[in-house]
Amino acid sequence: MGSEKTEKEENIGLRYRKSDFSKWFNEIIAKSELADLRYNAKGFLVHRPWSVMTMKAMYRIYEAELERNGHMPVWFPALIPERNFKKEAEHVEGFAPELFWITHTGDRRLSEKLALRPTSETAMYSMYSKWIRSWRDLPLKLYQSCQVWRCDTKATRPFIRGREFFWIEAHDAFETRKEAENQVKVDMKTTEQIMHREFGIPFMFVQRPEWDKFPGAVHTYAADTIMPDGKILQQPSTHLLGHNFAKSFEIKYRDRKGNEKLVWQTCYGPAIWRILASVIAQHGDDKGLVFPFKIAPVQVVIVPIGKSPAVKEACKDVRNRLADAGIRTMIDDSDKRPGWKFNQWEMKGVPLRIEIGPKEAKSGKLTLARRNNRKKEKISNKGVVKIVERAGNKITASLIKAADKFFYENIRSAKNMEELGAMLKLGGLVKVNFCSVESEGEPCADEIQDRFHAMIRGTRVDKKEKPTGKCIVCGKKAAHVVYVGKQY
Amino acid sequence: MGSEKTEKEENIGLRYRKSDFSKWFNEIIAKSELADLRYNAKGFLVHRPWSVMTMKAMYRIYEAELERNGHMPVWFPALIPERNFKKEAEHVEGFAPELFWITHTGDRRLSEKLALRPTSETAMYSMYSKWIRSWRDLPLKLYQSCQVWRCDTKATRPFIRGREFFWIEAHDAFETRKEAENQVKVDMKTTEQIMHREFGIPFMFVQRPEWDKFPGAVHTYAADTIMPDGKILQQPSTHLLGHNFAKSFEIKYRDRKGNEKLVWQTCYGPAIWRILASVIAQHGDDKGLVFPFKIAPVQVVIVPIGKSPAVKEACKDVRNRLADAGIRTMIDDSDKRPGWKFNQWEMKGVPLRIEIGPKEAKSGKLTLARRNNRKKEKISNKGVVKIVERAGNKITASLIKAADKFFYENIRSAKNMEELGAMLKLGGLVKVNFCSVESEGEPCADEIQDRFHAMIRGTRVDKKEKPTGKCIVCGKKAAHVVYVGKQY
Repeated sequence: MGSEKTEKEENIGLRYRKSDFSKWFNEIIAKSELADLRYNAKGFLVHRPWSVMTMKAMYRIYEAELERNGHMPVWFPALIPERNFKKEAEHVEGFAPELFWITHTGDRRLSEKLALRPTSETAMYSMYSKWIRSWRDLPLKLYQSCQVWRCDTKATRPFIRGREFFWIEAHDAFETRKEAENQVKVDMKTTEQIMHREFGIPFMFVQRPEWDKFPGAVHTYAADTIMPDGKILQQPSTHLLGHNFAKSFEIKYRDRKGNEKLVWQTCYGPAIWRILASVIAQHGDDKGLVFPFKIAPVQVVIVPIGKSPAVKEACKDVRNRLADAGIRTMIDDSDKRPGWKFNQWEMKGVPLRIEIGPKEAKSGKLTLARRNNRKKEKISNKGVVKIVERAGNKITASLIKAADKFFYENIRSAKNMEELGAMLKLGGLVKVNFCSVESEGEPCADEIQDRFHAMIRGTRVDKKEKPTGKCIVCGKKAAHVVYVGKQY
Repeated sequence: MGSEKTEKEENIGLRYRKSDFSKWFNEIIAKSELADLRYNAKGFLVHRPWSVMTMKAMYRIYEAELERNGHMPVWFPALIPERNFKKEAEHVEGFAPELFWITHTGDRRLSEKLALRPTSETAMYSMYSKWIRSWRDLPLKLYQSCQVWRCDTKATRPFIRGREFFWIEAHDAFETRKEAENQVKVDMKTTEQIMHREFGIPFMFVQRPEWDKFPGAVHTYAADTIMPDGKILQQPSTHLLGHNFAKSFEIKYRDRKGNEKLVWQTCYGPAIWRILASVIAQHGDDKGLVFPFKIAPVQVVIVPIGKSPAVKEACKDVRNRLADAGIRTMIDDSDKRPGWKFNQWEMKGVPLRIEIGPKEAKSGKLTLARRNNRKKEKISNKGVVKIVERAGNKITASLIKAADKFFYENIRSAKNMEELGAMLKLGGLVKVNFCSVESEGEPCADEIQDRFHAMIRGTRVDKKEKPTGKCIVCGKKAAHVVYVGKQY
């Protein structure tokens, strides 16, 4: 770490992202004022404006895409009666240890306790059975943007693991299995469209092994990303629920021939909160945050050099033109020195900075600085809106490129356990031949867990991979190619 | 009711809004699919897409205005430790009976119980004391859009009184009392700007009597509206908190001379959920909902007449042009008859309907129907975007005009108790001379409550009104002009 550090970086106080990722991550969250960890209930985060503005932009983009593919927004109660949970056996077993229970109001004991939603299947599906009567009511595709509460007892980490987090959950019901399977594919495409192409986070969709499915699902497909320290972070997952919940909640419809049938269901859960963790981690650098253009809380900061009326006027004029074009723009006219401001807004990840001094105010040229590569150029004042939009898109494209490079460099193959161990030390995903992912308690998975503290993430979804050799653990004929990684 | 009813209204099944308001209100909420009351936890509402889309539009407009006047968004935890509540004595006393308490996670008992926020003072101010150090940190103006939970034991009513409701709360801290008092005025202006001019809900801001303040406030100013049945509904209120919370949470700053001082605080709470109740009630009619243009979930519905390719093409073309201009537009190309569709979308309150048949597709003329007055006119296809925008604004203006008329017609004066009784029977607000609003347990207020089940709402804020006679109850010299009404 030490030697390459410049004085400026010392001032900012950040450590190098790669060499001490955990420290860097916590420091950047505090220093850029994304969140405050000092709230006096354990595992709960106070979200400050800088993270809220970013997540609001992320929500808007995600919601628009869900609505484009036929979803409508709902708001269900955050409280779920105990009896609803008990309806789906696997579901209650999976979530019971993590539920927050409301037992009293005022000083009166409730006749039935209420759980804070850890996810909304058991709230929503109790109504789906009332709303769905005929094939004409299908498909039913609803989503809600909300927070959920899970009392995870593992160490909490801001935006990665906490007791309250912000997400979207989409819950769909169909006439046929084929439509449900197709929805799962659409969910994966949505993830690609938004998380990768807009937020710049590459991932691999894998089908989770039997023992790692969402409680109540037939199949779980999850997007695994790689963090800068090489650990795996689960991002949006989509689930084929089949008839499991339809049976327990009696969600039935009359088909076109008048026969009563169970609906086929799916659910999809992009956790905006956790995607933000990837955005912070993936794009940040030694100077601080770097935001993709579309989700930056402030997209352009204008820094006046000097205080002449001409400079002030020019700043306002540029700000107004950018704001009118829908670009989130602010002027930093505080009393600090320009150099301090440059550092500050670079640390906060604002994609573009425009500097306007007396020369710029006169000449019709402005100075444009890019956060990602810290290059400066002179641009025409007249064309500023188009130039900013183009530069914004270029920044996002270059963030995606760098993130992709890192991601694919960190997918490796191992032929035996020694190689697997060595590669897991490098981090990322390791591809191996494996015997079985079909039932709980596979000893070969336990072996990998015990020896390397790593997990079988699952089998790749975007292409079929046929195993050619033997299981890396037991040496029996391999039935799957799986990916292994250490997770958060 | 009976005689004026037409067959169509029978079909829709609504009752006249004025003669049986409660029934009309519940029916329109169910039939227009705003919300479902059948969720199996008492007092909790399932918000269906039609209400969520409306409230999202309302949130966007309100948030933009708050940000324009210097607020930034935050998200605080929904859970508040018991010790935070206990810090401000009046506050805990006011909210304690209504708190939802979390006592367990999984099957473990918590060492300190956590309340679901009924409002966020005690969550937020615990951090304000950490964030505010110097006058340079002031003013601090933050808001959050969230839901709150209060276990009101009175009869619940959708969007009016429930155990979970959606609102915005803004919490501001200042150096001086003057700035805080000014913020209260700004909050009242914001209410006028948004609730009246955008949502079409007229109101009167009154300063609440001592016994009816927000728990912990020095002064409470609340916007009272009148519902169609003559009852009063409290809308946004803004509170001068003074030093009350600053003392209990030790929110101090160093002033410009280096002296340590307490901050001055205010908070403001527009309940989007309850404003929607007013929107439904105020603008609706015997045919169903009527939305002001800017908050309509769908602003324009296009109904094709016939199924010719030319008609389809024309519908799509108009839809695309409207959507490109940011107008929420849908084509209803379902299999129902046009007449059924007209009724359906009128019931759901869509402000404008465009009908396109073979004639319209050919001629370059379209048929535009307005929801509020149900008038039809021919418009030019070319100019549709501008015409729709203009018509939308006109609709909102005429809704405001009608609502204002109703509101001011229902403010009356009474000289004695008999008159007061007669006027309270007519509904609305009644202006009377009154002795004292300065301390708890005023016998004259109790007398009005006992005799008429009505409450002293408070003294008018927008103009000083000097009493000239005697208190309407006890006959002593009147010190205030107050407004009396029956509330929800």
